Amino acid sequence: MCLRSGEAMRQATQALLTADLSLAERVLQGDAEVDAQRTLCEERAYTLLALQAPVAGDLRTVLAAVYCAEKIERMGDLAAHIADTARFTHPDHAVPTELEGQFTELGEISASMADRLSELIAVPAEGAFAELKHTDHTVNDLHAHVLSLITSTTWSHGPGMASNLALLARFYERFGDQAVSAAKRLDFAVTGTLPS
Amino acid sequence: MCLRSGEAMRQATQALLTADLSLAERVLQGDAEVDAQRTLCEERAYTLLALQAPVAGDLRTVLAAVYCAEKIERMGDLAAHIADTARFTHPDHAVPTELEGQFTELGEISASMADRLSELIAVPAEGAFAELKHTDHTVNDLHAHVLSLITSTTWSHGPGMASNLALLARFYERFGDQAVSAAKRLDFAVTGTLPS
Repeated sequence: MCLRSGEAMRQATQALLTADLSLAERVLQGDAEVDAQRTLCEERAYTLLALQAPVAGDLRTVLAAVYCAEKIERMGDLAAHIADTARFTHPDHAVPTELEGQFTELGEISASMADRLSELIAVPAEGAFAELKHTDHTVNDLHAHVLSLITSTTWSHGPGMASNLALLARFYERFGDQAVSAAKRLDFAVTGTLPS
Repeated sequence: MCLRSGEAMRQATQALLTADLSLAERVLQGDAEVDAQRTLCEERAYTLLALQAPVAGDLRTVLAAVYCAEKIERMGDLAAHIADTARFTHPDHAVPTELEGQFTELGEISASMADRLSELIAVPAEGAFAELKHTDHTVNDLHAHVLSLITSTTWSHGPGMASNLALLARFYERFGDQAVSAAKRLDFAVTGTLPS
């Protein structure tokens, strides 16, 4: 799920930056698979809880899995929102030339957070939250930078494009937030304490 | 939690529409209480799962509680985001006169969804999802209407205000989505089947 949501984010960003309609549509179609995997994950967790009544670390791990599955499904949704914006604005470009660099970076860093989260799920290690939180600062900075540009008095592309970009930047920011939130629960599963 | 998030939404909308700085700050401060209650709810659920190993309807109820607590905490966050926008734009008004009606309605309907969710949590009844989903259509329509106005060629308030309004409208839309999502889990707790 996590690798797929990272890949969806890469493809959605590419579709956005190149106004690639068919790629945007592939991302939108692919989202149903992540949703289905989340349902499977929940059903498996429910069965484990009902039949095995896990305690301590096992219980924390099952609960963390349910929690992470929800966050990762949401990451897929956010990538789909980006693809949907690319689809909606096609054949126009939603991102003007001078912001392409920022959105390229937003896409790369967000997708890399999904990749790293996937590794941390496979091989749990203490400090997942701190690590992803650190990476997320860059996403937050880029998000703030985009907002400052589109709301500045020198903005020349009009309110429609500005509104779309405000929402797009927020989708990336929320994608990063979900990854951080999932990482927090991975730490909880390992240590028994929610990092703050 | 649910009544508090509804009240936070009412106050945040009032702060937004009247550019009331002190009310906005009260909403922002109050959000920590909802967050703390969510943590308590999770801890209680964890203890129940570990010590009592509930099955069937009891297990579904405990899992629904964990799920709903997260959604309701998020509803509080979204109300706080609205208050934060009011605080940030103060002493200016974030919402122009011609959109005050739409945002008043968004605030009232969203808050009423939180109130209704609270009743459904206290007295579970089948059909919670369908009922809140129905109300949420109005929120979605208002959200779409605001977006169409701020991206139209006749928009006269500039890109900065348009961007803020796009994000504000989304906060209301997401608030409604969380309530619907929570209601879905209430149905699951009652019937054992997730409504689609």
